[in-house]
Amino acid sequence: MLEDEVAKVAGSVGEIIQKVLGGDGSRLYTAAAHLPQQGGKRMRPFMVVKSCEAVGGKPGDAMAAATAIELLHNFTLVHDDIMDNDLLRRGVPTVQTLYGNPLAILAGDLLFAVSLNVLLRSDGDPEKVRRAASTLTRATITLSEGQHMDMDFETRGDVTEKEYMEMVYKKTAALFQAAGEMGAILGGGGEREIRLLGDCGMNMGIGFQIFDDYLGVTSSEEVLGKSVGNDIREGKKTLIVINSLETPARGRMLKLLGKKGASDREISDLFKTLMSEGVLDYAYNKAEGHIRCAKTCLMALPTSAARSQLLELVDYAIKRKK
Amino acid sequence: MLEDEVAKVAGSVGEIIQKVLGGDGSRLYTAAAHLPQQGGKRMRPFMVVKSCEAVGGKPGDAMAAATAIELLHNFTLVHDDIMDNDLLRRGVPTVQTLYGNPLAILAGDLLFAVSLNVLLRSDGDPEKVRRAASTLTRATITLSEGQHMDMDFETRGDVTEKEYMEMVYKKTAALFQAAGEMGAILGGGGEREIRLLGDCGMNMGIGFQIFDDYLGVTSSEEVLGKSVGNDIREGKKTLIVINSLETPARGRMLKLLGKKGASDREISDLFKTLMSEGVLDYAYNKAEGHIRCAKTCLMALPTSAARSQLLELVDYAIKRKK
Repeated sequence: MLEDEVAKVAGSVGEIIQKVLGGDGSRLYTAAAHLPQQGGKRMRPFMVVKSCEAVGGKPGDAMAAATAIELLHNFTLVHDDIMDNDLLRRGVPTVQTLYGNPLAILAGDLLFAVSLNVLLRSDGDPEKVRRAASTLTRATITLSEGQHMDMDFETRGDVTEKEYMEMVYKKTAALFQAAGEMGAILGGGGEREIRLLGDCGMNMGIGFQIFDDYLGVTSSEEVLGKSVGNDIREGKKTLIVINSLETPARGRMLKLLGKKGASDREISDLFKTLMSEGVLDYAYNKAEGHIRCAKTCLMALPTSAARSQLLELVDYAIKRKK
Repeated sequence: MLEDEVAKVAGSVGEIIQKVLGGDGSRLYTAAAHLPQQGGKRMRPFMVVKSCEAVGGKPGDAMAAATAIELLHNFTLVHDDIMDNDLLRRGVPTVQTLYGNPLAILAGDLLFAVSLNVLLRSDGDPEKVRRAASTLTRATITLSEGQHMDMDFETRGDVTEKEYMEMVYKKTAALFQAAGEMGAILGGGGEREIRLLGDCGMNMGIGFQIFDDYLGVTSSEEVLGKSVGNDIREGKKTLIVINSLETPARGRMLKLLGKKGASDREISDLFKTLMSEGVLDYAYNKAEGHIRCAKTCLMALPTSAARSQLLELVDYAIKRKK
């Protein structure tokens, strides 16, 4: 089962995180450990380890990098939550809600520093470690650009699909791309394999994010753990929102977009229109196209247990319920 | 002249910074470039380059690391200014004053990511680059701990000299220590040389910071560019403040400590008492002791032009006027 395999990697990564953030028990380390301790899907570390194995490496070759990418992902979440003023994450209060903005900023910085330090002080071939760390910092630059685009979209009414796709690549897919590349680098893969696993990660990341937006309007509150249609109430420029503005649903969408108090009835009426206009199908098909593309990349690698698990992971990105 | 030598390194570092932060001209890159463009003393990059040369390396071997440490230093300043709610830095508005907190947080993150990326993608022996980057991230962890101690001191009335010294080591000296070590590593120095240059940087950093606190009460407003005694008005727990609480000046110090509206007359009366109680001399002598120690480390290295320049730099740390 995919879940068991993911849990295995998550367990090893969790142990390292526990060790490096156990620290001195100060408020700073406690604040930094808060979000990683809540779990999460752990898709990125799994992608790193399985990419390493898919090119012939051992899981141990990539465990420091897997830990680094999970810590880095958590760093971006901690800071994003401050910037977006979000109060809840993974069902619990965000770091700044519990510790205030100054300590949350510092806790995020610490997660970033610890992330890279874990990777850089790992043994293994120095050139591979150097290149993996360089890949991770390059991706972090791209993530910052993506977060900036996302913040910029909030105040704009004219975001195009092309801009949205670039934002999704930068904010979400670039880190999955780095996951595939880092695993392949540390596993001793050749340039072609590094490229294929990077492309696989990138396409999976894009499919994952578009499907996330899709879930946000088609799932149910019980499954999702938050109100359906919240993206619309918050005025988020998702692919579904952007495309709806090109259809007769435009007027209705603009009426509810960013309207915090929109009722469930208003939202569900809007969804019926979106469905009949084909806006939901368009988003789903786009996500599925990228997932197919990710699988094609994997099929160009030799058969292995790791490759099968990566194929399952890629499928999970658009088959999950939440 | 030391100034000319520092300016030479600063020029090369400035060119690389201009290149990596020129970016796309977006608000994000403009915000990130704001502080580095204001200059600063550039002591850290100079320390990196000269430590490299002092063990037989070429300046070019350490230029990426010199750029990385300056960008990293700027990252910490940008975030510290948000945490401390400071409006001015280097005589100009801080990043968050100009761009707001969310973008300033992101600009700091970008500086951190770019810093490490510049170092990690540089050519040169991969093992040396890996070790230098590992040294820099380890120092960043220590800096975070130092900033946390500093924040914690604000609300405490019982800070000891020992705690103050640990905070100064972590918040200021650890990065100078990393500067010496990184330069020595990239210049091909042996373990003894790496240790000596690291110890030199550490002791210079401690002397530099204590002298900074000393200047804050003994200099003049024209030279300093800010009111003399501001540390006291802001309630900062400097070595001078901490030690004054052990003398008969305790009562007067507590009366003014954290009192935003303390008059220049009240402050200057307090200084006279601090001087006659020997509190100012104690601080100066402590700074000078660390500077002497830093020089002793340098004297254990073979004679070279770089060593002479480092000796000058170390002296400058407690001979500067601001």
